[in-house]
Amino acid sequence: MSLLGIDLGGTKLGMAVFTTSGAILHKEQLLLNGREGAAVGELISSSIRSCITGDAFKSDPVQAVGISVPGISRRNGMVWAPNIPGWDDYPLLAEASRACGDIPIRIESDRACCILGEVWQGNARNCRNAIFLAVGTGIGAGILADGRILRGAGDISGAIGWMSFGGLFEDKYKRCGHFEYYASGNGIARQAAEMLQQRPDYRGALRNKPAGEITCHDVFAAYDSNDPIAETVIRGCIVYWGMAIANLVSLFNSEKLILGGGVFGPASRFIPAIGIEAQKWAQPLGFREASIEAAALGGEAGVYGAAYTALQLLATDNHKTLPGNVQ
Amino acid sequence: MSLLGIDLGGTKLGMAVFTTSGAILHKEQLLLNGREGAAVGELISSSIRSCITGDAFKSDPVQAVGISVPGISRRNGMVWAPNIPGWDDYPLLAEASRACGDIPIRIESDRACCILGEVWQGNARNCRNAIFLAVGTGIGAGILADGRILRGAGDISGAIGWMSFGGLFEDKYKRCGHFEYYASGNGIARQAAEMLQQRPDYRGALRNKPAGEITCHDVFAAYDSNDPIAETVIRGCIVYWGMAIANLVSLFNSEKLILGGGVFGPASRFIPAIGIEAQKWAQPLGFREASIEAAALGGEAGVYGAAYTALQLLATDNHKTLPGNVQ
Repeated sequence: MSLLGIDLGGTKLGMAVFTTSGAILHKEQLLLNGREGAAVGELISSSIRSCITGDAFKSDPVQAVGISVPGISRRNGMVWAPNIPGWDDYPLLAEASRACGDIPIRIESDRACCILGEVWQGNARNCRNAIFLAVGTGIGAGILADGRILRGAGDISGAIGWMSFGGLFEDKYKRCGHFEYYASGNGIARQAAEMLQQRPDYRGALRNKPAGEITCHDVFAAYDSNDPIAETVIRGCIVYWGMAIANLVSLFNSEKLILGGGVFGPASRFIPAIGIEAQKWAQPLGFREASIEAAALGGEAGVYGAAYTALQLLATDNHKTLPGNVQ
Repeated sequence: MSLLGIDLGGTKLGMAVFTTSGAILHKEQLLLNGREGAAVGELISSSIRSCITGDAFKSDPVQAVGISVPGISRRNGMVWAPNIPGWDDYPLLAEASRACGDIPIRIESDRACCILGEVWQGNARNCRNAIFLAVGTGIGAGILADGRILRGAGDISGAIGWMSFGGLFEDKYKRCGHFEYYASGNGIARQAAEMLQQRPDYRGALRNKPAGEITCHDVFAAYDSNDPIAETVIRGCIVYWGMAIANLVSLFNSEKLILGGGVFGPASRFIPAIGIEAQKWAQPLGFREASIEAAALGGEAGVYGAAYTALQLLATDNHKTLPGNVQ
């Protein structure tokens, strides 16, 4: 018996077949190569068919399929994925179900899959209350609360990039939210560029590129050589990340706060400093019970989480209980 | 068939017997009269017994009991209630179960009961995603997410009084949290007192009392006569309440944000202004789907919610579904 996890990204499709105990039997990656709309759905369907019917898995047939999507998975089976052209409201469940036949399938958002992957095989194993704070180009959170993924009225819960940290509102926050404006990968690059313009006297490493081309990774590299602008930007982000972790601890009373996404990565070394900042603000009993950790699965969290959601589906269908009674 | 709801407060015990459709058949209130520890539990038990066995309900016998407690209801049946001396870890479930005999019983925190009451008979009817922001002497939140009360790893979720809104941390926030320090009833009184000390030239109505005796209600009364200190304090609170609502909308994607507790009350007139502030910061799709409203049940939300949790218990035991599939 095996599980198929599929992780759709903006440019590629990752797939892996897992044992029910989380060992990878097979994995592969396909490029989307500019596919749009229904062609992306068909690529997913043909990949499912090849895994279900292929000779490779005859001894361990796929019993359930999970798909991670880079956007919103609605309970009616429709998917909104801003980076896949034509997926404003794409009927992925209907499309993929045809390929699955009798095999059960579930679709989850990438942020939900990230925390589910960490709960299954990463740094939040067996937790029923754990949050994945995904800090990449943007910021979002996958929230497992009391053993269930938090969905909300319109399936868009976890939009933590919009968290307000006070001060005066500025129109520039409107497109992405206050927290994301400053403390995402894009925010780090943007802040460095803004500071360069304000400091014509600065002669450091960040001057080697036009301000508009500076990346988040340039800022981390400059930080390593004690660059003053990079230090100011990163120190500010540590405060924001710490306050966000504090607010999550106070609201959700989570056991694990997992920091992941492309920025963690290089920012993982700051987790102790983020913890010191979070401790100032958080509800103290909740903070004492919480652990702040880097993600364990890196770029594979999505495909692990997709497979785990397939395992959850099997457990529900068979009235079994998973460790931690995660549903 | 009827339901018994019990609402324990710091100084009194409210009780009401309800029909399953939410009509009150009987209600009464007992003063704790300085009772402590086990004596409070015994008062609850004797009240349960009199409702269960009393002649008054022979035609509509009590089928389930719910209790709202002013603190934390742990899943092991123990209760922590800071305002009841001796209730650091009181075995209320064991005590009250003896009085109930075969009748099922459930204990919930007061903030959970407030949102459940509003979901049953108030301004959040039939919602599966709704939050009660209780602003009284302190601040807390009762959170219904995807049809379930959010509990967290240690049953202390919803500690929103600790929400950080940025700026520099000050030690004075340590006892109650940043949000509560400024925007609770105590916070409103404290801020007014601090401003009085900073403004020896001020000659308004708030000078009629020693600064240490000013109450939240004095500040609202002064606001009504255009007092400049009261206006500054209340305007600041509107910003805090708005940011908190925004953060809840972004994280939980709730349909209803219910503002209650003693401060709403007098602050209910500011809900439109709070909405304008919240709209600036919140995730825009989520905000469009959300409605910000005053609590409908006032001081009775707890007893309604306690009865509703009893109804939930009956529904679960009988495999029935309540409106909105709230569990």
